[in-house]
Amino acid sequence: MAPRWKGKTAEAKALAEPMSVIVSKLQTSLIESNAQGLLSGSAVLLEALPEQTELLYRACIGRPVITAEKKNKQWHQLSFEEALYLCSVLKCIKVAGENECAKSDEEMWHYMVAKRVGFPVLFKAYSHLRRKNWVVRAGSQYGADYVAYRYHPAFVHSEYAVLALPDEDGDDGNARLKVWSDYHCTLRLCGSVAKTLLVLHISRNGEDVVSLSSLEHYSVEERIVTRWNPEVSRENQTMIMKK
Amino acid sequence: MAPRWKGKTAEAKALAEPMSVIVSKLQTSLIESNAQGLLSGSAVLLEALPEQTELLYRACIGRPVITAEKKNKQWHQLSFEEALYLCSVLKCIKVAGENECAKSDEEMWHYMVAKRVGFPVLFKAYSHLRRKNWVVRAGSQYGADYVAYRYHPAFVHSEYAVLALPDEDGDDGNARLKVWSDYHCTLRLCGSVAKTLLVLHISRNGEDVVSLSSLEHYSVEERIVTRWNPEVSRENQTMIMKK
Repeated sequence: MAPRWKGKTAEAKALAEPMSVIVSKLQTSLIESNAQGLLSGSAVLLEALPEQTELLYRACIGRPVITAEKKNKQWHQLSFEEALYLCSVLKCIKVAGENECAKSDEEMWHYMVAKRVGFPVLFKAYSHLRRKNWVVRAGSQYGADYVAYRYHPAFVHSEYAVLALPDEDGDDGNARLKVWSDYHCTLRLCGSVAKTLLVLHISRNGEDVVSLSSLEHYSVEERIVTRWNPEVSRENQTMIMKK
Repeated sequence: MAPRWKGKTAEAKALAEPMSVIVSKLQTSLIESNAQGLLSGSAVLLEALPEQTELLYRACIGRPVITAEKKNKQWHQLSFEEALYLCSVLKCIKVAGENECAKSDEEMWHYMVAKRVGFPVLFKAYSHLRRKNWVVRAGSQYGADYVAYRYHPAFVHSEYAVLALPDEDGDDGNARLKVWSDYHCTLRLCGSVAKTLLVLHISRNGEDVVSLSSLEHYSVEERIVTRWNPEVSRENQTMIMKK
């Protein structure tokens, strides 16, 4: 499926600067300014310089929070996935807890795993797609864990509705696609919003969820689920194509 | 939600003969002719007289099978739910197995329970709605167990997408609506096809699934799940309505 562009100039704008370049600029800028986020319930708040605000928007990470504070700074709200990705993968921010002390990546991990059911599998899926320069946003509107965009959402519609499913059953269990009616529901919805269902089967390979570092040993198997169209492999289809 | 009629004359036609009257005529006619179905894999085949064919159509039970047989008879394919409902609730057909001997209701029950995962809960849901004169059809197109119509599908669109969920976990388990993403998916799809989600929570009340007669002791709790619209209870909404 080709990307569905939003408007005529979108393609040129999106191709002008690849996501990897934007994320790399954001990374450099945050490292230089010693950026530090604040853990706040189920989110992380990050104060950013105007340049960083622009880069966060273009990388599609976090969302600005409206405050009445200093004009040259802007607060952003990051999801757990976004914050942990900036901390532990891009290594460009630190996050402080309530006592204002910076937390280690492992401390962040423990906090998030305790706070959110299924977080290890969700974060593995998020970071897996982000590393491949997909733009990843929450998918609850479409009954999915995430949606994935090939470029910035200002330029394209999302291509994939993503479900992250643990291969092993357990307390991370994201109990989806266990019965046919769930498959039918998900595929019908994906069809009606022109997305493809991407199922990421994530296996812990015997690792436990105790440490963030064990995540490296998880494996991810990507499966696309679509309806099979019998016409595609039909004789007369080939004939039509030859005409 | 009011019924969504198909065309201008649909309402008058639907109201002219209530579903309870149609089903009762079908029942009488099948009893008079000593109708007997044949168990065939995951369906039951029933040979019907022209009058019965007409009544089966109007009651929306089974679907005609195209055959090259006798002109004055018509074969119909009944689902397990439909066949068992005609046998055990309306008591108007008998069903024979491969040996051409009529099976008892309990024998049918055992066959169907063994053949189809979750059948006790599904049949309880089907018969619960049918007894209330809803027209019940398979809901797989909408990722549901059933869809329910207020009148014949020729006159109205279906109003409800129905999921039948066992209250107890077990091997009947219909693993739906265990996680939020499944709720989001189901509600979004229901919204886009203008149906309301009807969840039938079915409790065995400690009964086992061994016998058909235990089904009488199952209880059914009907829950409608919709998005809550905060505007509905708002002050200015009342003011707008008063204008």
